[in-house]
Amino acid sequence: MPRAVYPGSFDPITYGHIDIVQRAKTIFDELIVAVVTNPSKQTLFSLEERRKLCEQALKDEQIDGIQVITWEGLVIECAKRYQAQAIIRGLRANSDFEREFQMALTNRDLNGNIESVFFMTSGEYSFLNSSIVKEIKSFRGDVSRFVPSVVEKALEQKFRKT
Amino acid sequence: MPRAVYPGSFDPITYGHIDIVQRAKTIFDELIVAVVTNPSKQTLFSLEERRKLCEQALKDEQIDGIQVITWEGLVIECAKRYQAQAIIRGLRANSDFEREFQMALTNRDLNGNIESVFFMTSGEYSFLNSSIVKEIKSFRGDVSRFVPSVVEKALEQKFRKT
Amino acid sequence: MPRAVYPGSFDPITYGHIDIVQRAKTIFDELIVAVVTNPSKQTLFSLEERRKLCEQALKDEQIDGIQVITWEGLVIECAKRYQAQAIIRGLRANSDFEREFQMALTNRDLNGNIESVFFMTSGEYSFLNSSIVKEIKSFRGDVSRFVPSVVEKALEQKFRKT
Amino acid sequence: MPRAVYPGSFDPITYGHIDIVQRAKTIFDELIVAVVTNPSKQTLFSLEERRKLCEQALKDEQIDGIQVITWEGLVIECAKRYQAQAIIRGLRANSDFEREFQMALTNRDLNGNIESVFFMTSGEYSFLNSSIVKEIKSFRGDVSRFVPSVVEKALEQKFRKT
Amino acid sequence: MPRAVYPGSFDPITYGHIDIVQRAKTIFDELIVAVVTNPSKQTLFSLEERRKLCEQALKDEQIDGIQVITWEGLVIECAKRYQAQAIIRGLRANSDFEREFQMALTNRDLNGNIESVFFMTSGEYSFLNSSIVKEIKSFRGDVSRFVPSVVEKALEQKFRKT
Amino acid sequence: MPRAVYPGSFDPITYGHIDIVQRAKTIFDELIVAVVTNPSKQTLFSLEERRKLCEQALKDEQIDGIQVITWEGLVIECAKRYQAQAIIRGLRANSDFEREFQMALTNRDLNGNIESVFFMTSGEYSFLNSSIVKEIKSFRGDVSRFVPSVVEKALEQKFRKT
Repeated sequence: MPRAVYPGSFDPITYGHIDIVQRAKTIFDELIVAVVTNPSKQTLFSLEERRKLCEQALKDEQIDGIQVITWEGLVIECAKRYQAQAIIRGLRANSDFEREFQMALTNRDLNGNIESVFFMTSGEYSFLNSSIVKEIKSFRGDVSRFVPSVVEKALEQKFRKT
Repeated sequence: MPRAVYPGSFDPITYGHIDIVQRAKTIFDELIVAVVTNPSKQTLFSLEERRKLCEQALKDEQIDGIQVITWEGLVIECAKRYQAQAIIRGLRANSDFEREFQMALTNRDLNGNIESVFFMTSGEYSFLNSSIVKEIKSFRGDVSRFVPSVVEKALEQKFRKT
Repeated sequence: MPRAVYPGSFDPITYGHIDIVQRAKTIFDELIVAVVTNPSKQTLFSLEERRKLCEQALKDEQIDGIQVITWEGLVIECAKRYQAQAIIRGLRANSDFEREFQMALTNRDLNGNIESVFFMTSGEYSFLNSSIVKEIKSFRGDVSRFVPSVVEKALEQKFRKT
Repeated sequence: MPRAVYPGSFDPITYGHIDIVQRAKTIFDELIVAVVTNPSKQTLFSLEERRKLCEQALKDEQIDGIQVITWEGLVIECAKRYQAQAIIRGLRANSDFEREFQMALTNRDLNGNIESVFFMTSGEYSFLNSSIVKEIKSFRGDVSRFVPSVVEKALEQKFRKT
Repeated sequence: MPRAVYPGSFDPITYGHIDIVQRAKTIFDELIVAVVTNPSKQTLFSLEERRKLCEQALKDEQIDGIQVITWEGLVIECAKRYQAQAIIRGLRANSDFEREFQMALTNRDLNGNIESVFFMTSGEYSFLNSSIVKEIKSFRGDVSRFVPSVVEKALEQKFRKT
Repeated sequence: MPRAVYPGSFDPITYGHIDIVQRAKTIFDELIVAVVTNPSKQTLFSLEERRKLCEQALKDEQIDGIQVITWEGLVIECAKRYQAQAIIRGLRANSDFEREFQMALTNRDLNGNIESVFFMTSGEYSFLNSSIVKEIKSFRGDVSRFVPSVVEKALEQKFRKT
């Protein structure tokens, strides 16, 4: 009964991430979405805000049985702690493959028992990421095709404040 | 009578940009250079300084009939407002194709009536961008091969101040 | 009144090619589809078969005013002969950019008055090319999502023979 | 109990392929190695020779419970026939990502119920493929680091004949 | 008797850098490691700390005859000042080739007498860079496989402070 | 006194190859151009024709002290036989980096004492290779900017025959 961790910044979660969650669920019995901190990147939403948006978005999309956690530390430690056999990564046409490779090989160096497993995002979301969503919304553009409505509302509030 | 918008940070304009302007002019009757703000990037020159440098540089290179504007917002809205059929992008050997694709597909999602049209930079300027020019000049290097003299002077003043 | 040549093997024409024709038509008043020979590649369809399939497919899709020609020689000579200002190329996520660049720069070396102009294929057809269509059909797979019905029938006949 | 098909030419099987088999086994209860025909590529070994080499090599490496089959047709049909939930693909630093994407998206178009799942080859085998092995052996070079001894012997016999 | 400069941020030096130093030494009689400032990047270690770590690490690895210097300015000026015929760069699988090309071509523009010469990092260190080391260490992960012990200790002190 | 081998198909030699020869000569005292056979590629010119064209072209360009040899076998064996410390490779913007990496790592596996050393082709020849030259000439196009006149004449004769 394979269990997997799907780590990411999720700043905020998009339909691209949700697509990967659904694909990974066809293979893994248990899936843990791990919202992680990245000391070298500044995020728009706080760690807890990002976790809540993931939880709410997955609920609104009626995807059940997904645990959403936050994690401050190495992803490989998170996988170990939650006894996962795999770390899920989504590949898009514009993925930074080399960065993905670097992370996967580094994680393998750190713990050889946990596999990095890659799924391919739907063609529809192939060029979608959190940054472009934030960029469009910062200019008051429409992002309803890219993120669930709970996320769109959160983005609106964020940019209203600034 | 096709009209096009050529958006960019132009921080500052280089001979690579000017090369694209000249190529696009062979196809488009009217060309609008749109100096845009990018909330996530800090620029060396202010929006208005960048606009003036574009205007002056194009004038010095004796390229007529180019309107230079500033725009704060989505590029696709700029194209719509100026009734352009196309958004011009320059491709270099070291272009971030994926970023270009992402922008073009996102713009197409936002407005399907405006095409992204790509021109290829001259081989001579194939690895030239504004960042490398600023980096060289910050170390007092010679950039006269890369930018018009009005831009070189502006860079000198900028780095003298700092 | 800019005129453009859109060259290719079109072995056979796919919805991806047709998508580019439609995009190019928004900018260019006259568009010539040039079915070219490539001495180093063997084709499934003859030059004349490919031309006829292009003509029929464009007609079936109700795209008017497109001239379809065959050309044996350098593309740049074709553009010159038909007094075109531009050579159209489609970019897909899996385009061989370097090959495109090489051809564009070589064409520019051979004739500096004709521009290579790139359009981006619809995301839907972003990974579609003639080879994958032939591969699927050679195994009796369904290709109706990828090519017009006239092309599908021609492929069926071709593979029945072999 | 997820089941997966790992398709390929395996002409011949290398330690890189075997590495992927072992990684996939940590996630999938049942794994089927499918040696496929590719009409557009000529192989050094016959379909049956390739199947036997896979079988023997996996046995020599003491990897149990792997079914090795041959398949002439679309990979997606093979996965369907064997009731697999996933198609396994190995990613190397020099993978042709675009080709992988094209195949995965095409397979998804043809059957949305079967996922393409990617594993990363060990760094050690990151630049290894069957072609380089054949090239080295054709010049009588040593390939014992790259393929099991049963494969090395088969290569020796093949090149002795020619 | 060719002499070369090997420039970099070395923030901090890793086994990947040391691997390149050893390879370059097989070709160049004299090798100068130049720790450079990069106005647009913030470093974890100061220029002088980085120089000392390079010096100590190379000494600990018993690599003799390497001069370690600091340089504030264009790399090409450094090469000229030290009468080097070449600038050494390491290529990894995840090198930013375009950035490397841009720098090499720009340096060639600035001084045509100094060649950029590229060496390939060992497969073992192919995905290793200073950033990933800092990221792992910031989470208290083990980096002893990636950097000499003197560097590991310096990283520990750095992150203890923060 | 470092010695290097510069291997390639040279089918035929172009100004791009000659550019690399000149750059490598600034670092290496002795340079051997090795015209190699590649069992999997068909060449336009015979091994001996290619060697003669290299020799004549280098002579016409007044580049002295270059030995031109033919080699049937592994490149690494060639380097060993000629007691070279390095194998030279040219990098162009459209190099197949992964293929280059694969060859370099494989050569390192086969003999760790010989380094692969990469030089960057002049921007002018950045997209030039033998294939494009043959393609243009097969259509009677002008290739005098890309190859020395002795090569151009040989190409003319070759295509006249066919």
